[in-house]
Amino acid sequence: MKLTVLGCYAATPRTITNPTSQVLEIQNRLFLIDCGEGTQVQLRKNKIKFSKINHIFISHLHGDHCYGLIGLVSTFMLLNRENDLHIYGPKGIKEIITLQLRLSNSWTAYSLFFHELTSTESEVIFEDEKVIVKTIPLKHRIYTNGFLFQEKTGERKLDINAVQEYEIETCYFQNIKNGKDIVLDNGKVIPNNLLSHDPIPPKSYAFCSDTVFDESIVPLIENVDVLYHESTFLDSEEHLSERTMHSTAKQAATIALKANVATLILGHYSTRYDTIDLFKTEAQTIFPNVLLADDGKSFNFE
Amino acid sequence: MKLTVLGCYAATPRTITNPTSQVLEIQNRLFLIDCGEGTQVQLRKNKIKFSKINHIFISHLHGDHCYGLIGLVSTFMLLNRENDLHIYGPKGIKEIITLQLRLSNSWTAYSLFFHELTSTESEVIFEDEKVIVKTIPLKHRIYTNGFLFQEKTGERKLDINAVQEYEIETCYFQNIKNGKDIVLDNGKVIPNNLLSHDPIPPKSYAFCSDTVFDESIVPLIENVDVLYHESTFLDSEEHLSERTMHSTAKQAATIALKANVATLILGHYSTRYDTIDLFKTEAQTIFPNVLLADDGKSFNFE
Repeated sequence: MKLTVLGCYAATPRTITNPTSQVLEIQNRLFLIDCGEGTQVQLRKNKIKFSKINHIFISHLHGDHCYGLIGLVSTFMLLNRENDLHIYGPKGIKEIITLQLRLSNSWTAYSLFFHELTSTESEVIFEDEKVIVKTIPLKHRIYTNGFLFQEKTGERKLDINAVQEYEIETCYFQNIKNGKDIVLDNGKVIPNNLLSHDPIPPKSYAFCSDTVFDESIVPLIENVDVLYHESTFLDSEEHLSERTMHSTAKQAATIALKANVATLILGHYSTRYDTIDLFKTEAQTIFPNVLLADDGKSFNFE
Repeated sequence: MKLTVLGCYAATPRTITNPTSQVLEIQNRLFLIDCGEGTQVQLRKNKIKFSKINHIFISHLHGDHCYGLIGLVSTFMLLNRENDLHIYGPKGIKEIITLQLRLSNSWTAYSLFFHELTSTESEVIFEDEKVIVKTIPLKHRIYTNGFLFQEKTGERKLDINAVQEYEIETCYFQNIKNGKDIVLDNGKVIPNNLLSHDPIPPKSYAFCSDTVFDESIVPLIENVDVLYHESTFLDSEEHLSERTMHSTAKQAATIALKANVATLILGHYSTRYDTIDLFKTEAQTIFPNVLLADDGKSFNFE
């Protein structure tokens, strides 16, 4: 599992900082999360193949999370994309994109599927054989969802030495990977745990931006490997975080602690601060394992 | 008169090239012409004061000319803009902007005026005491206008030595600047040309992008000081220019020649070519005074 942060600053794009967008690579799938203005250029700068992006998740319709989407959809068209593109986001996102395509008389040759979200309860919005994606309803000034990406538990790993020792035929291997015990020709039962190892524990990533401090998300993100939680402000600006429905670094760390996550990544920084190191220092007073997102930074979680 | 090119490349924004946007400074007014994705960052890079932009002209609704507009409108809001903002562009532009503001629940505190264009004849769309702006109907795949910016002829310049010599009182100075002759107390008439000099000749700038080669614009742009004419392709790709309704460098130069302009600026280059110098070389086989637009380049025309 690898996270590449394309942009992680609040509000407007600036000369050297970009609004929210990130790419999660999980089980060889690339998921684009949010798409602020300039995302397509950030994708190029970070050498991420446009053609590998088939699913885009938009948390909410504030500009710093979605104004780059129409440009990306159009660029896919100019690049002669053929793959389907799935866009998951708040109701209204389809109208925003299709209105602009219609007025520019530029329909995509590839198929564009919109999955508009309206629920205020967590729901499964994507699932295939390896990955499941659920919404994390957040509290912000407009309808907003975070997203929880979970690998499914894989097959058990065959113990090659053990299966050779018991002279088990290859036609039974899949049963062993599926966790089944094996009955030998002599009637003897070999328990599965003597023939296989536990699978690699599935990884999980929770993206929570933008949101006011809200403990009700804790049960949804409990024990995730990596939590990205917005920290627009420091504790000294807590009054602003309440008013604008954002979080402080301390509040993000409190959520991480209560949810017992392994790693917390902070982001969505206000540009009012001289250095983002202040966010880490503040968060670590509550929760130790804190990383700082920054534009163009990648995190490997293997 | 000063032109700052923020972006002048066709199609999609890339790592080092930007889609169309430029700032024309004329008679202390700043006019933003087109607004591709990333324009607000280009404004910052070129240190152009956001608060001085009160009029934005959008040629057409293809993404590389307008996808940065919603972001700029939103950023103006975040910067607590108070001045009115006037947007001139094809019908539909109001719906694109207001739909996105409505869905993000982010109304501007400043007043936003849309001047939607539908005419296929040239028309005056802006006028104040110093400047007049007219449309230049262009032929492209969708409804498109170029824009002609003209300084109005200024007042005549007082000849200080002459008015002192004739002992003319200051209360008559404005009449002299307005071109009036002066009658002295003794009845003698002093012709205006002995008391004043001709005003500085008014400057004019024509922006023509995007368009197929179209001689019908020549009468509208005749004798302008500066013509920006798109040259997406070179002559070797003339078949593409016809199909996509763009122009070649040679065609742009032909328009410049026929319209007897003083200076031609080329831009809107396809990124398929290794160097933009090829455009200049080709255009100069037809018309000598050719300049090349490039992102971040400024041109002073005093």
